[in-house]
Amino acid sequence: MVTGIKNTVRKNLTSDDSLILGIDGGGTKCKAVLMSPDNVVLGEGTAGPGNPVYGLEQAKESIKSSAIMALQQAGMSPRELVNITLGVGLAGVNLPKHYDNIMNWQHPFKQIFLATDLLIASLGAHDGGDGAVIVSGTGSCGFSYVNQKSTILGGHGFPQGDKGSGAWFGLKAAELVLLSLDGFAKPTQLAEIMLAQLNLKNSAELTEKVAGKPASFFAQLANCVFVAADAKDELALSIVKEGADYINTMAEKLMNTHPPRMSLIGGLGRSLFPHLGRRVQHTLSAPLSSPEVGAVYFARQNINGFIPEKLVSIVT
Amino acid sequence: MVTGIKNTVRKNLTSDDSLILGIDGGGTKCKAVLMSPDNVVLGEGTAGPGNPVYGLEQAKESIKSSAIMALQQAGMSPRELVNITLGVGLAGVNLPKHYDNIMNWQHPFKQIFLATDLLIASLGAHDGGDGAVIVSGTGSCGFSYVNQKSTILGGHGFPQGDKGSGAWFGLKAAELVLLSLDGFAKPTQLAEIMLAQLNLKNSAELTEKVAGKPASFFAQLANCVFVAADAKDELALSIVKEGADYINTMAEKLMNTHPPRMSLIGGLGRSLFPHLGRRVQHTLSAPLSSPEVGAVYFARQNINGFIPEKLVSIVT
Repeated sequence: MVTGIKNTVRKNLTSDDSLILGIDGGGTKCKAVLMSPDNVVLGEGTAGPGNPVYGLEQAKESIKSSAIMALQQAGMSPRELVNITLGVGLAGVNLPKHYDNIMNWQHPFKQIFLATDLLIASLGAHDGGDGAVIVSGTGSCGFSYVNQKSTILGGHGFPQGDKGSGAWFGLKAAELVLLSLDGFAKPTQLAEIMLAQLNLKNSAELTEKVAGKPASFFAQLANCVFVAADAKDELALSIVKEGADYINTMAEKLMNTHPPRMSLIGGLGRSLFPHLGRRVQHTLSAPLSSPEVGAVYFARQNINGFIPEKLVSIVT
Repeated sequence: MVTGIKNTVRKNLTSDDSLILGIDGGGTKCKAVLMSPDNVVLGEGTAGPGNPVYGLEQAKESIKSSAIMALQQAGMSPRELVNITLGVGLAGVNLPKHYDNIMNWQHPFKQIFLATDLLIASLGAHDGGDGAVIVSGTGSCGFSYVNQKSTILGGHGFPQGDKGSGAWFGLKAAELVLLSLDGFAKPTQLAEIMLAQLNLKNSAELTEKVAGKPASFFAQLANCVFVAADAKDELALSIVKEGADYINTMAEKLMNTHPPRMSLIGGLGRSLFPHLGRRVQHTLSAPLSSPEVGAVYFARQNINGFIPEKLVSIVT
């Protein structure tokens, strides 16, 4: 496992073919790490949104900013970017349009190896080895990478997919609260919990508050469901059951691809875990490193001629 | 009931205090009608989106454009707007922010009487009298106006509300198709019907197609559900049942406000009707006039000092 920043011992670094930048570009932020060949973290950086699906120019800018920040933290000049190899994982690049958009970029790096956010998350979680990950954060998705074969499950986006994710829990909760306040569903503690969290008084204010909001807004309401479920609220428990059942089924389907390890990652993992089946609970292992470190592993494996990322979406 | 355009008999009209413009400003278009005191339609006009919630400047522009078109069709100059009273119904103006945005407009009319889209739909459907309407088009909402008291049910917007609407049916269908193609739900004819309608081959293409789409896009998928339900597809039938049950409950709740008449309006009415309960089916009456004609009635009633629109959202 990779730990701590040890750049205090290596101040005057210059470019080195064996230094690799790893970047995880997500919907809310871009995280970069600069690593030495012996897995020492030399510098880290964080910048704005890095999802090319929701803003290509912003994503490029965030990738560059987070990279420069990591170089500067390592005591290197931004001009050294041109000598640095980048491994980067981004959502949406399994779709040819977004893959091409990034690959056609006149980027400032020596070379770029581009993977999906899922592959780098899995490589990170399993220290570069085969394995599977279930991600439940703002969105949700299942992924396994075994014998150079990728399997993707779910991850169809908000609001039509991403069941069991933060945005899904928040949306279901908002739906049920509005129905309940109109008398179309049973009274639920979810209503008072959500209204209190948003500092609102009634259904009309809630309607106005949630109008046109993105997935990230609804994801912030997910905790209301788990708080109400802890208090044995019937409607909240039914939402938790539906979401957790989906994640549990996803885990079972991924187990069919025989991953040596499987991890549940993302902000909702801890809340979901107690509601999963015993078999799945016993199968899950702790993630060993972060997705951005996984991006470094991905770049190294490409340099060594090891991985062609062949994404195959398998329905099981 | 108001019929046809009879402006051929009244070519050289000049402004007249008793001529009233009625406008229905919806999410996709703005419809205007110019009416004489004896309910003769003198001119009509249609322009772009008129929903101030999704674009205030566009809504103002559409209101003005549709009004000018109606005046020109009646053989009048656009300069006459300043002498014309406007009755207008718009979505969202039950919320103070949007109401104030319109009322603070330096508008080109003599005066404006502003109502919700729901009130003018109900006044139109019942020729200016008390009554109730259930709207199911792109969105859904229930409304009654009895003894100067308004009741609103539902209408909480996409994707968190508007159950039983076109957008809701389309979203549910997309959700289930994506789950089914991933093996998380039973096989369904909905999948092939939807893929064929969108000219797509698989789940990945569907995921890309629906990403980030607005309510109006999903509403165009609603018909897939009814086609598959007609072919006895189990999942489609379950979606139809859930949506129709909600609309049926809404009708029963509105009946508790004792409206003299009740109509089911909007693009989905015809598809939903066969799936409603017998009691509700027998209660529904055909709408007598359009919402824009309802807006004319609203303006007249205001001029006569008759209506103060007191919107009261009642939970029943």
